[in-house]
Amino acid sequence: MDPPRFVIEASEAESMAKESGLSVLQLLPSLVKPAQKLARPPISKFHVGAVGLGSDGRIFFGVNLEFPGLPLHQSVHAEQFLVTNLAVHGEPILRYIAVSAAPCGHCRQFLQELRNASDIQILITSSENESEESAIFKPLSSILPNPFGPNDLLDKETPLLLEPHHKGLSLLSKTIDLNCSNLCNGVCELYTNNEAKLKVAALEAANNSHAPYGGCPSGVALMDCQGKIYTGSYMESAAYNPSLGPVQAALVAYVASGGGGGYDRIVAAVLMEKEGAVVRQEDTARLLLKMVSPKLTSNIDVNG
Amino acid sequence: MDPPRFVIEASEAESMAKESGLSVLQLLPSLVKPAQKLARPPISKFHVGAVGLGSDGRIFFGVNLEFPGLPLHQSVHAEQFLVTNLAVHGEPILRYIAVSAAPCGHCRQFLQELRNASDIQILITSSENESEESAIFKPLSSILPNPFGPNDLLDKETPLLLEPHHKGLSLLSKTIDLNCSNLCNGVCELYTNNEAKLKVAALEAANNSHAPYGGCPSGVALMDCQGKIYTGSYMESAAYNPSLGPVQAALVAYVASGGGGGYDRIVAAVLMEKEGAVVRQEDTARLLLKMVSPKLTSNIDVNG
Ligand SMILES: [Zn+2]
Ligand SMILES: [Zn+2]
Repeated sequence: MDPPRFVIEASEAESMAKESGLSVLQLLPSLVKPAQKLARPPISKFHVGAVGLGSDGRIFFGVNLEFPGLPLHQSVHAEQFLVTNLAVHGEPILRYIAVSAAPCGHCRQFLQELRNASDIQILITSSENESEESAIFKPLSSILPNPFGPNDLLDKETPLLLEPHHKGLSLLSKTIDLNCSNLCNGVCELYTNNEAKLKVAALEAANNSHAPYGGCPSGVALMDCQGKIYTGSYMESAAYNPSLGPVQAALVAYVASGGGGGYDRIVAAVLMEKEGAVVRQEDTARLLLKMVSPKLTSNIDVNG
Repeated sequence: MDPPRFVIEASEAESMAKESGLSVLQLLPSLVKPAQKLARPPISKFHVGAVGLGSDGRIFFGVNLEFPGLPLHQSVHAEQFLVTNLAVHGEPILRYIAVSAAPCGHCRQFLQELRNASDIQILITSSENESEESAIFKPLSSILPNPFGPNDLLDKETPLLLEPHHKGLSLLSKTIDLNCSNLCNGVCELYTNNEAKLKVAALEAANNSHAPYGGCPSGVALMDCQGKIYTGSYMESAAYNPSLGPVQAALVAYVASGGGGGYDRIVAAVLMEKEGAVVRQEDTARLLLKMVSPKLTSNIDVNG
């Protein structure tokens, strides 16, 4: 069986649409159910799937992730997963989303970080008599009128989410390394051999983060037991609480890479953030990683 | 100078309204600016004030709280503070809110937990030409149409937020005690003398928490350096992430009690939650308390 996929290339999307006699856009709702199957909600058992269309014709999947043993604010919603998946794959524009349930207020708020957010077209497959055919795309502004968002706080030149960011964090003086405990010595060697690479990856992720409100970018690099690296960039919300942490973003990259594998395949992790950051991820990053991959243990490397 | 107040008694509200030739309801917008002054947003410096009218004629204030050194999901929004303030003072119904800025999606979602949420009337004082007079009350449903909420997940008999809860947690076998470090021995004595009282208070707070989705109620009791106890009950959101943690709720009770004092006056804290809870507050509660009141240190008391 093929591993689960979270991105469909443009050419394949076109073929799929042609076969069904649909446009690529009309194809989106039919992919929501397959997306839902990929969700990982061990607490709620409520599987949410979101399917988005990129500007270059690629189709992106998003699913919800939940983490037992922690407060619920650590959860990742399908719409946030979707946006992160676009970021991971270098797609800067999201105009259409089909989703299995009415987006919650937290997600409607998170989506405000995108350029021209009010025009994002959203189709809810569960609405209107459960009939996918009768559901239609409606603008985000119709389900979050009079929003609070980036326009209330930033000038027009500030890059928004998914737009290129240049934070210039190369002078960062502190890193946090979470590598494997004695339970997996072989893998620790793998980490030791890749330490520099992981730190560079985490720094790059921090540079790509969206943190215009608190001014504290951060990034995470995870390594799996085969030495593959996954990075996550912090994504901040004007409304603060809906912000997506860098570990969450890296876990999205890990899941979206197609591995159906468990989080316990993650054997090393590096967080890069400012020394003495006002918005500080370190302790919370440790908590989340310890909970999802108990093999990880933490070392602090003060001099990066 | 009188200490700042977060509740205005019904008789006083009526007198104030009469003096201005207004109804009590018309008085709300004029109290938003005084409320804003009580906010504690050291990160954003963005002061938000929310003023609500209870069913018995009392007026309640809400302000935003931010906690440096932690991720932004720990923040408390003014609307959440307001709802918690009602809970602290035993007011079960919130029908009118005047607020200084458009409520964010996170708050619109959080408010869904209240009975008849769609009819809550909200007036935004900053809107419509900055003129308080021209602003009008509009229903929550007009700024969060087609919501996801309790109706999607609970049966009609389940109590909602602010309604009486009976969790029957008396069999809890684990408590977490965070008492003062050596830096304040005198206060430690204060804690030791009140340990049982603090545990009973935390258990009662857990019993009053709203946790119908994850099934993991929790409560916190804080003690200040004068021996006064403040409790906070966990408030869960159907959308998970907007849930308000029990420490946050207890800090609201502390601030709302009128003390203009800093969080470092808090010298002891007890968290009560289920052993092995799937939605587990312990580690995060420690992080937040350590950050706001560094004098606190933590001991685990496994047998309650
Ligand atoms: Zn959501
Ligand atoms: Zn808010």
